Amino acid sequence: MIAIHPLSDLPEIRAADDLPLLLRHSLESAGLWPPAAGDVLIVTQKIVSKAEGRLVDLETVEPGPAAVELAATVRKDPRLVELVLRESSAVVRAVPNVLITRHRLGHVMANSGIDRSNIGAGGGEQALLLPEDPDASALALRSALGGELAVVISDSFGRPWRHGVVGVAIGAAGLPSLVDRRGGQDRDGRRLEVTQIALADQVATAATLAMGEGDEGVPAVLIRGLPVPAGESGASALVRPLEEDLFR
Amino acid sequence: MIAIHPLSDLPEIRAADDLPLLLRHSLESAGLWPPAAGDVLIVTQKIVSKAEGRLVDLETVEPGPAAVELAATVRKDPRLVELVLRESSAVVRAVPNVLITRHRLGHVMANSGIDRSNIGAGGGEQALLLPEDPDASALALRSALGGELAVVISDSFGRPWRHGVVGVAIGAAGLPSLVDRRGGQDRDGRRLEVTQIALADQVATAATLAMGEGDEGVPAVLIRGLPVPAGESGASALVRPLEEDLFR
Repeated sequence: MIAIHPLSDLPEIRAADDLPLLLRHSLESAGLWPPAAGDVLIVTQKIVSKAEGRLVDLETVEPGPAAVELAATVRKDPRLVELVLRESSAVVRAVPNVLITRHRLGHVMANSGIDRSNIGAGGGEQALLLPEDPDASALALRSALGGELAVVISDSFGRPWRHGVVGVAIGAAGLPSLVDRRGGQDRDGRRLEVTQIALADQVATAATLAMGEGDEGVPAVLIRGLPVPAGESGASALVRPLEEDLFR
Repeated sequence: MIAIHPLSDLPEIRAADDLPLLLRHSLESAGLWPPAAGDVLIVTQKIVSKAEGRLVDLETVEPGPAAVELAATVRKDPRLVELVLRESSAVVRAVPNVLITRHRLGHVMANSGIDRSNIGAGGGEQALLLPEDPDASALALRSALGGELAVVISDSFGRPWRHGVVGVAIGAAGLPSLVDRRGGQDRDGRRLEVTQIALADQVATAATLAMGEGDEGVPAVLIRGLPVPAGESGASALVRPLEEDLFR
């Protein structure tokens, strides 16, 4: 049995908060400390970004000509579009109300992952960027928590061809984000055709089931009982280079 | 706490097996019967297809000219490619070793979801098609199990831009496959920008964590403790028409 435990008593996270300490207190109060073998802690991008001070006051952002032009196309705030461009390496799609980019980390996502919701009371004109290096953030959290828990930093992405968002991993440490089954055999002894499992994405999605959205938002989850395979790779292993994409 | 229970004692499923009865026995032996409120039973496409007799002997398949030509491009068995074409409405990508189609149900996936692995001992040259109507299959399973459990039929898909497969829902009954959050507010009272949650896909992915692949394959999972929102829509609600796709 695999158990997904929401950590619902975390306080609102602010810049320079000691996030590992707060997470540890929450795990303790939930009876989930010390860690068991295979425990995976999933933390939303939002609280990691907040703790890392990635909130930007839009009043301080001066949009350049490219942002002003793109903002007119997508009908968004030119200052937000300026941040989206700074955080991206390519624009994938730009039509009214839709701005999909390739983030500098490689993820293809809406608005370079920049979020204007749930960023704290009173912050009317602020935007929250992704962590500078989410794999490094996951590794730092893992170390600060004693190095036994695996850590996944989650976000929610839309997908081509399907409605609705699902959880994805943008940072990971202490588990293999991508599990390679090449050369494995199925129960009939045939070579497996499905070869690689996006384990960190699956973990992030499972955690999302216990996180909710909006008012009920729970920003961290512990998964216990998962048979975690050996190996370790960051969420960057999940990014497929644009030129290798199989779907176009 | 949300619990993911693998149902690991199911026998090998064959055509015309009473799948609901076998699932109920497995739930009983796992101490998971009767159902609790919010229980979701996830069953792999493979065992549903097998029970519905969707196994095709490749010897009976006569590839047409289009299949022969496409098979040369993708370097696959022309009889398999013939089945892939019969099950699809469009070819999305065809290069050596890769054949991605839009299935007649709308899903964009490799080989129209046709599987040559894990289809039972001795079946050397057989292929397993998706169920004829997976939403109807899910509804029938739900009804045969008393109408209390929600049912999701899962498969594993690759994704654009990301390595590795994740679980997806191709059939669902008894829960809203897509949860609409439009008009909701976040904790700061802002209008939520993330508006629709692909709940059935998330459930299928969470179940996949307990299913494994290859030798350890577990074909059914019960998720207990999920806060299932009101409403009901099949997995067809997750399919975004090609012409509405936001990512191209």
